[in-house]
Amino acid sequence: MLPEMPLLHATRRNFLKTATMAAACLPLAGWLPRTLRAAEPGRKLGFALVGLGSLSTHQIAPALLNTRYCRLAGIVTGTPAKAKRWQAQYNLPDKSIYNYETMDRLADNPDIDVVYVVTPNALHAEHTIKAAQAGKHVLCEKPMEVSSEKCQQMIDACRKAGRQLAIGYRLHFEPNNRECVRLAREKVFGGLKIIQAGFGFKIGDARQWRLRKALSGGGPLMDVGIYALQATRYLTGEEPLLISATSTTTDHLKFAEVEESLVWQATFPSGIIANCSTTYSVGGIKGYRAYAENGWFGLDPAYEYTGQKGLRSDGQTIALPPVDHFAAQMDNFAQCIFENRPTPVPGEEGLRDLRVMTAIYESVRTGKTVKLG
Amino acid sequence: MLPEMPLLHATRRNFLKTATMAAACLPLAGWLPRTLRAAEPGRKLGFALVGLGSLSTHQIAPALLNTRYCRLAGIVTGTPAKAKRWQAQYNLPDKSIYNYETMDRLADNPDIDVVYVVTPNALHAEHTIKAAQAGKHVLCEKPMEVSSEKCQQMIDACRKAGRQLAIGYRLHFEPNNRECVRLAREKVFGGLKIIQAGFGFKIGDARQWRLRKALSGGGPLMDVGIYALQATRYLTGEEPLLISATSTTTDHLKFAEVEESLVWQATFPSGIIANCSTTYSVGGIKGYRAYAENGWFGLDPAYEYTGQKGLRSDGQTIALPPVDHFAAQMDNFAQCIFENRPTPVPGEEGLRDLRVMTAIYESVRTGKTVKLG
Repeated sequence: MLPEMPLLHATRRNFLKTATMAAACLPLAGWLPRTLRAAEPGRKLGFALVGLGSLSTHQIAPALLNTRYCRLAGIVTGTPAKAKRWQAQYNLPDKSIYNYETMDRLADNPDIDVVYVVTPNALHAEHTIKAAQAGKHVLCEKPMEVSSEKCQQMIDACRKAGRQLAIGYRLHFEPNNRECVRLAREKVFGGLKIIQAGFGFKIGDARQWRLRKALSGGGPLMDVGIYALQATRYLTGEEPLLISATSTTTDHLKFAEVEESLVWQATFPSGIIANCSTTYSVGGIKGYRAYAENGWFGLDPAYEYTGQKGLRSDGQTIALPPVDHFAAQMDNFAQCIFENRPTPVPGEEGLRDLRVMTAIYESVRTGKTVKLG
Repeated sequence: MLPEMPLLHATRRNFLKTATMAAACLPLAGWLPRTLRAAEPGRKLGFALVGLGSLSTHQIAPALLNTRYCRLAGIVTGTPAKAKRWQAQYNLPDKSIYNYETMDRLADNPDIDVVYVVTPNALHAEHTIKAAQAGKHVLCEKPMEVSSEKCQQMIDACRKAGRQLAIGYRLHFEPNNRECVRLAREKVFGGLKIIQAGFGFKIGDARQWRLRKALSGGGPLMDVGIYALQATRYLTGEEPLLISATSTTTDHLKFAEVEESLVWQATFPSGIIANCSTTYSVGGIKGYRAYAENGWFGLDPAYEYTGQKGLRSDGQTIALPPVDHFAAQMDNFAQCIFENRPTPVPGEEGLRDLRVMTAIYESVRTGKTVKLG
């Protein structure tokens, strides 16, 4: 076990400082390690995955094999057959196989340093809080939860336990997105004025948890629209002041509980306006473009697991070498834990998105512009 | 002079019928004449241009030379030096040179069949009504006027005079836009779900009439956003039901009277949602993309005088041979007049855009979704 880290206070000042520190400490391309703690050379942090769905199976577990500072050390699953398959495939000891009833016992397992929560959105708080109470650091998939209140409970639980909480915003570690952040912040094309961003896909199986509001908290906004929201926030470096939004549903059977498509507009303090779209009904909306005083730039695709590429109005392409996003994210979290410095994507970042998404749904519901305080 | 044509009633039923007729009678590519009235073989309609600014000088007058059924037959200008220059360049007779005080006398000039109004937006009604009262057909640039009331006055005046009124929606005659309409209406990629459209540019001279609300009626929405609005209407073939909109201004000196940037969302009866942007502060926003159940298509650039090109999600390009938009528009109007059939872009079409734009400004002002009746 690692010693406790200083608590991360969620004030705006510290928040900005954290973001700046993070930007400074992450290389824009490639992935170079920083000095590890001399006391533990070569040590890898043990990760336990909670929820063994498609994301864990096809992205996160394979990515763990690509990390430098992490290893798969345990699993939590409600499906015994999955437990058996994973245990064999990844050579996990019996003591590191948990279900949702036994995961409290993580506290007794020194092989596990970090719990990675990959369950449906509305279970994130429960699993994060259990992990924190077991003394583990937590990496939690986006969206952080389904309400600001539950996000705050997660932050509080991790703070109380003296453990770090990071949200799975893997694009913060993706070189082409980072290049766009650089183009924006360094005003390479002048100050930003308008951002167009969107992410959607045509959803398949109508029985999946993403379409059940009690588990998902919402539709495409919570699932993929959040990437477009994140993009507007990391490109501008600002928080939205005003939100207006509209949603539509044409298939009322499939989308009985969550929206089918949703568009929203965010006005930022500097006057930048973002015009965003998300949907579960069509493919092809998968990028962003930022329009600045003297030109534009953007990525399309911007958010997927691989294949980021972009254009600039001066004819240059944005095509930095790909990294394994999940590996980069987990290695970064491990480094932050090793070096006792705050993650650049803390719970407060997830909470902030939840607040904006809550405002978006409020605007849809009321038909009014919502002011964020 | 041509005989009076049947009055065009602005009911919704006739309106739809008119649009359908127009779509049926216009070829999708190329420009093939229909049978002219046997009584007047080879006759060209005489056009008088009202307002000799950049659009008349650089687009419309040259385009008249490319028409089959039209010719420049007169001018109305408040600037004697321009009158002299144009008269010499286009070999116009003295009797066909007018200023804004003398344009009533158009009634006495049988050489002039059509008056093309190219003055600032807020003068369109005055000049259209004068032309109608002089017994001329009128082609009026977009936006039709600065209020629905003034649009209605124009429609009424032309109806009373028994003359046609067309609005300068040149893209209705542009093959690549027409191809997108075909892809939408024939559901080549399935039913439309989401449209993203925008048009903007970085405005230069801060003293131009476009930035004076009394003359323009509004900012980029009235000037170029109207193209994105039109695109959402001709792609869907529907009228927006709900509008929400947000505007921002960062340069309060330059944009003291009109908005700098504006985004709006329109929900259509079938559930299609359109997410649109317009601006006077950045370049590069100049196209649309329509996302349908099984794919997407769109143009970028979509609205400029030349250079339309497009992509489809199946990898095909949209690149139909270019036409002179202004020539095509004027020839179409001439054919409609010759054949005594209604223009596909009547005053009612311009009024409809004004109603939507009025709702957009109302939504900006109130911060509320506006319902269109």
